[in-house]
Amino acid sequence: MSLDTLSPDEIRALHDEQQAAYEQLKQAGLALDITRGKPSSAQLDLSNALLDLPGQDYKDAAGTDTRNYGGVVGNVQLREIFAELLHVPVEQLVTGDNASLAIMHDLIVFAMLKGTVGSQQPWAQEEEVVFLCPSPGYDRHFAICEQYGITMRTIDMLDDGPDMAAVREAVTDPAVKGIWIVPTYANPTGAVVSEAVAAELAALETAAPDFRIFWDNAYAVHHLTEERTKTADIVGLCAASGHPDRPFVLASTSKITFAGAGVSFFASSPENIAWYTGLVGKRTIGPDKVNQLRHVRLLGDVDGVHALMDQHREILAPKFAVVQEVLSARLGGLDVATWTDPRGGYFVSLDVPDGCATRVVRLAKEAGIALTPAGASFPYGKDPRDRNIRIAPSFPPIEELRTAMEGLATCVLLAATEQRLG
Amino acid sequence: MSLDTLSPDEIRALHDEQQAAYEQLKQAGLALDITRGKPSSAQLDLSNALLDLPGQDYKDAAGTDTRNYGGVVGNVQLREIFAELLHVPVEQLVTGDNASLAIMHDLIVFAMLKGTVGSQQPWAQEEEVVFLCPSPGYDRHFAICEQYGITMRTIDMLDDGPDMAAVREAVTDPAVKGIWIVPTYANPTGAVVSEAVAAELAALETAAPDFRIFWDNAYAVHHLTEERTKTADIVGLCAASGHPDRPFVLASTSKITFAGAGVSFFASSPENIAWYTGLVGKRTIGPDKVNQLRHVRLLGDVDGVHALMDQHREILAPKFAVVQEVLSARLGGLDVATWTDPRGGYFVSLDVPDGCATRVVRLAKEAGIALTPAGASFPYGKDPRDRNIRIAPSFPPIEELRTAMEGLATCVLLAATEQRLG
Repeated sequence: MSLDTLSPDEIRALHDEQQAAYEQLKQAGLALDITRGKPSSAQLDLSNALLDLPGQDYKDAAGTDTRNYGGVVGNVQLREIFAELLHVPVEQLVTGDNASLAIMHDLIVFAMLKGTVGSQQPWAQEEEVVFLCPSPGYDRHFAICEQYGITMRTIDMLDDGPDMAAVREAVTDPAVKGIWIVPTYANPTGAVVSEAVAAELAALETAAPDFRIFWDNAYAVHHLTEERTKTADIVGLCAASGHPDRPFVLASTSKITFAGAGVSFFASSPENIAWYTGLVGKRTIGPDKVNQLRHVRLLGDVDGVHALMDQHREILAPKFAVVQEVLSARLGGLDVATWTDPRGGYFVSLDVPDGCATRVVRLAKEAGIALTPAGASFPYGKDPRDRNIRIAPSFPPIEELRTAMEGLATCVLLAATEQRLG
Repeated sequence: MSLDTLSPDEIRALHDEQQAAYEQLKQAGLALDITRGKPSSAQLDLSNALLDLPGQDYKDAAGTDTRNYGGVVGNVQLREIFAELLHVPVEQLVTGDNASLAIMHDLIVFAMLKGTVGSQQPWAQEEEVVFLCPSPGYDRHFAICEQYGITMRTIDMLDDGPDMAAVREAVTDPAVKGIWIVPTYANPTGAVVSEAVAAELAALETAAPDFRIFWDNAYAVHHLTEERTKTADIVGLCAASGHPDRPFVLASTSKITFAGAGVSFFASSPENIAWYTGLVGKRTIGPDKVNQLRHVRLLGDVDGVHALMDQHREILAPKFAVVQEVLSARLGGLDVATWTDPRGGYFVSLDVPDGCATRVVRLAKEAGIALTPAGASFPYGKDPRDRNIRIAPSFPPIEELRTAMEGLATCVLLAATEQRLG
């Protein structure tokens, strides 16, 4: 029963049915929020040991007093754990404060004002700086570009990574200095960049000598199934291809421990690490080493991280199952929407009929269901087809999530039938 | 008995005596460090309660879950405590992560790439940006300027603040966009900016419409006597003078709680706070609110901060007394050096005969006494008179400090007599 095969009267009947459901929804006085990839309280509880850590022993394994100044590269034990998880040499990994977004921001700022390793001049002195933005993608990446006047060029995000035909063509332009990629369980589609795509990104001949891959591995260990998908080794691939300074790898524990009080990571070539620590060493005398010690004591080792992520999965997987269940039950087979079924990460990406996303989000809002604004996952907040909606199932309790998803399905059907009826 | 009144033979005798003392010093195999304003372990111990805080109650007074994302302005209770200490309205104060230096850096970066409130264009697009640097001053301020190509113009730091005659003349140049000031217990002289100087800085007519005072109140409550010197209210003075957006006020708990794991503060006009939070909100989803909650629970209120600072004073004041005692006993009356006797802060500023500072630092280094490099307290690391040495008495135990100071006095006398003998 596709919407395409229904008669106008059948569509009208479906519309009226959804209209009635929608009116009921509005009466319910909901206040639900599926906008942001925030961990739920139950997930945060998994790391509550941090709240009493590190305890009175404030020295790290090397005997350093973590309370005092110093140490711009961060705690070595913590770096060892994440070097293994991210498959990079520990000397090529530094750990910082609570937000990898901040490191990404600073990398852009340093490139703009100082240039990167291999830049001919600071990017701010270029006539134009362009970043490729596989979309739908992460709105906060795009916001940094927008803040600093970096032109964003939209590239389709496919199931195995960015559309490489488009990338290949784009990088012949020397103004193209970078690409944003969430390689594993991409925000919001859940796509995983394949080895082949990663290898091509690493090997690509680019007109700009200082082209950078911002490889935001935010969900490196955030599996929703028992399969621990391994992220392609972009640092190794780039080095092997003769472009060692191309990758900027980011990660954090924001969705492993505490979203607002975790630790962040930056990995790259030895030259890039020296470049970064030299510049960031003028910004701060060092990261919060006490918090890093807390994390070492909580996580212990790589197995500790995986064990913690298994507990997250037990909380998250049922929520993602509810999203699939409601979307299938309500929208399945009608050809009014497609959606992703991610094997990890924090989002489900829903495509409604072209031109309907803004309407769906507005309808949902009026019924008390907050969704990320339509278009947020695209550069400049503009979805060229106005069809994409990002669903973030993590934060609400499961029954609220079900209610929100039922309401969202109603809004999708209402908007789609409205459109058909003209 | 001034060196000036001694005969050549008497100077030679004094030199030989110091040379012998210096040879003994070298034999002692010292490894002492008075380079950096680092709190001692005993001082850090005063805040060891932080190591178990906040405890399992992770909600702030407003009921916010501090573990999760959000809240770019930071914990309101912490802001209330420091608003009172810094004499600014709480709405005009935000709190951040562990380093106010990082906020200063980001303010510069934002001004370079975006311009400040009232800028005609981003500073990076100006032909030249000049900062006034009252010197001796704080080397890390100067390092930020150097990193981003901001021209530094040296201004003398006097007992009541920067030499205002020089400032007055300098600000007629529209390239002059800012001035660095540590208003209370300046690094390294200990000078306190007077109300009159602060009022003139606030009222100054400057050629640049976006002239900024970087008012780094790092030692606002760091008294070495029972007198709690009140810092001039630069925010109020600037507002009253019709230049509300001129001051950027910084502070931190780096030398109140943990040097590497404290919290930072930024205060300014409402417009500047909106400008800053708008920009920094693209860098991070929020500061580490758990650490802010820890600080609220440790400090409690303004009286809690003062009580803690009294404990710091009990540890620090005897160390500063040793510095005065040794310098007076060894160098007093010889007219070979002058030094400050600060009533707060972290440093003593020592002036040796012109042209001798580099030699003194080298002599000390060879005897195992690490001093901040000569010139470090001046723009580009160049002391035009090569006479200033910064002494940081806080970190070493008191007997080590005494040994270091005795050694330093020997080096000063040796260098001064060497110079006289030609």
